[in-house]
Amino acid sequence: MALFSVQTRVAGGEARRGLLHTPHGDIATPAFVAVATRATVRAVSPDDLESLGVQTVIGNTYHLVLRPGAETVGSLGGLHGFSGWRGPWFTDSGGYQVFSLGAGKEHGVGKVAPAFPGDSRPRPQGKSLVRLTEEGAVFRSVLDGSWITFTPESVIHAQRLLGADLVLPLDECTSPWHSREYTQNACERTHRWAKRALAAWEETADTGPNSGQVLYGIVQGGAYEDLRRRSARLIAGLGFPGVAIGGSLGRSKQDMFQVVEWVTDELPEDLPRHLLGIGTLEDIVQAVRRGVDTFDCVAPTRMARNGTLLSLSEPGGRLGIRTARYRRDTKPVDPACDCLACRGHSRAFLHHLLRSGELTYYRLATLHNLRTMVRFMSGIRAVLADGRTPEVRDLLTPG
Amino acid sequence: MALFSVQTRVAGGEARRGLLHTPHGDIATPAFVAVATRATVRAVSPDDLESLGVQTVIGNTYHLVLRPGAETVGSLGGLHGFSGWRGPWFTDSGGYQVFSLGAGKEHGVGKVAPAFPGDSRPRPQGKSLVRLTEEGAVFRSVLDGSWITFTPESVIHAQRLLGADLVLPLDECTSPWHSREYTQNACERTHRWAKRALAAWEETADTGPNSGQVLYGIVQGGAYEDLRRRSARLIAGLGFPGVAIGGSLGRSKQDMFQVVEWVTDELPEDLPRHLLGIGTLEDIVQAVRRGVDTFDCVAPTRMARNGTLLSLSEPGGRLGIRTARYRRDTKPVDPACDCLACRGHSRAFLHHLLRSGELTYYRLATLHNLRTMVRFMSGIRAVLADGRTPEVRDLLTPG
Repeated sequence: MALFSVQTRVAGGEARRGLLHTPHGDIATPAFVAVATRATVRAVSPDDLESLGVQTVIGNTYHLVLRPGAETVGSLGGLHGFSGWRGPWFTDSGGYQVFSLGAGKEHGVGKVAPAFPGDSRPRPQGKSLVRLTEEGAVFRSVLDGSWITFTPESVIHAQRLLGADLVLPLDECTSPWHSREYTQNACERTHRWAKRALAAWEETADTGPNSGQVLYGIVQGGAYEDLRRRSARLIAGLGFPGVAIGGSLGRSKQDMFQVVEWVTDELPEDLPRHLLGIGTLEDIVQAVRRGVDTFDCVAPTRMARNGTLLSLSEPGGRLGIRTARYRRDTKPVDPACDCLACRGHSRAFLHHLLRSGELTYYRLATLHNLRTMVRFMSGIRAVLADGRTPEVRDLLTPG
Repeated sequence: MALFSVQTRVAGGEARRGLLHTPHGDIATPAFVAVATRATVRAVSPDDLESLGVQTVIGNTYHLVLRPGAETVGSLGGLHGFSGWRGPWFTDSGGYQVFSLGAGKEHGVGKVAPAFPGDSRPRPQGKSLVRLTEEGAVFRSVLDGSWITFTPESVIHAQRLLGADLVLPLDECTSPWHSREYTQNACERTHRWAKRALAAWEETADTGPNSGQVLYGIVQGGAYEDLRRRSARLIAGLGFPGVAIGGSLGRSKQDMFQVVEWVTDELPEDLPRHLLGIGTLEDIVQAVRRGVDTFDCVAPTRMARNGTLLSLSEPGGRLGIRTARYRRDTKPVDPACDCLACRGHSRAFLHHLLRSGELTYYRLATLHNLRTMVRFMSGIRAVLADGRTPEVRDLLTPG
């Protein structure tokens, strides 16, 4: 069976509804992939994910190699057996950590916007913990300060042991503040790494604990049209059955959507497209309209822990539960939501739990934000099934 | 209906099995009361407690008055409505905080043993945050440093708003290192406070959000036989329908069991007896044998968060999940346990979650320890139902 099948295409646009087939079940797309960096989605458990309707999660090879180690996970049944999440797993490669522990620290930036909104200049935030060579990336371990080498081959070997269904190769995620020359060189190195990853992938077929694993390719090229288009063609041409869009997405939302458009424009329609690290409601809708199928992002779960609760019933799509206005508010976070937090608890109680630093808060808030993402993505798929183009304003339903 | 009915008495002993009747359901005793200091049991939610078979929880008036305030809780439906836990609630008064923020800090001790095992002398751990007068206790708020006065009357008023089913009055919990003279004076003041609490209780009947609340009396007197016996007789004589054993329980386990024995020896059989702040498996069995019906203690939930998991299948009744020996252990924490953590996860995974500081750990570990307490108490009740005296060794079942 092909990895991906398109079910509905929206006339006159790139948006599509589809099914991504994995050995651990099908994923209805567009889909949000919950982030489970260290083999768990923070603050919740696999049975929670199942009851929320979460379809798939993404672990991180860099973090899992550091602890508990790919060998350990492999000996305990791979990520599916180790974590208890029996649905589809993605694993990211560590390529993002090349950036976040490297140039991201030096440049003081995230994937898109400057770290300090309103200030267009980057501000260094620290010393790089990464050394890059043609061979691979050498990381300073955040656990014990030791140096650990990641190569395209070692990352494949680790991911064979982790046993995720959908695997991402090692890449270099550049910074929005890297020069064109740097970005081009990094992009070309990522292409050479992609070929090495593919070769290692073919050599290790059927040696890992799980069969039917699939290796995606990653498109790089920063916010430069020619680099992005060339990278997309090259990665698709190497025969990867799926493609992820990685790296710098420019210095603004407009840049980001433009980058996505260049890439999907170059890709064959039958390849599933994953957008790495993007996940606000608005960004997802804009990327779906440009032909993206899956998204992973820490935002919904991290925002939950910081007190920002998503609500499709609010005009802005969210509320800050820490603010004093909710101290005696007996309403649920989102009256239209059917999650455990909204069925059983008031805003006042969640406000109290967060203010008190109670651990109970983090699970309830995470359940709510993930359930909201599930409902939002389901709403997008319903609009696509109707042959319509999704709009954020149609998906929010302020009461 | 009477508050308490005895179902089985063990011949030739004080141990009994019974039912404690509350407006929010009956509690089968002996029972463990899960600690929900700030209106939640840490790391779990009310639906979790229900699925675990937890019968009842205890909140803390001192902490709840500080945040979110008794008025706020009252306006949101009392503890039952605010927290979503619809079963029976106890509320402690703040009397323990008179000790833990006062003499406990000055003396560097807990309720029984010296804070530094093996060293019989106390070591001061800090400055008292409490001033005691005949009127009441003045606390320095741990939130903002302001001074807050608790009197027997104000604590009753607050607890009418909190609306717990079983309420404890303000007392002074003394230190094992207080002199006999100090302990006697404190005990007599606690008796005067008990009378003031009773008067305030009668004045405020039917003015709170919940009907059918019951006020327990608290027996004090340190580890002095005459003081404890006199206090037990006096408190029972004041007409309290239930009695709690509070305060210093001496300097050793032997002292503690002796104190319990003196008190229950003096109490009428039809009064339910609660032992405040005690909760290891061994301590519970010893106190049940001496006629105690209910127990509250942070130990099971706090130990869970620190990595100590109870297991009725281990000879010692527990295991330290942080130790490296569990890194690749595929067994559940306790093969005989039916909790979510034991049904779905290995020791290796819990070890990994704790080592990684993942929030998911805290709920799974707490579910497990609470479920173990529920199973343990149920085992005690089954032994009593057979007319036998419970022994810890009969309740542990090492595989």
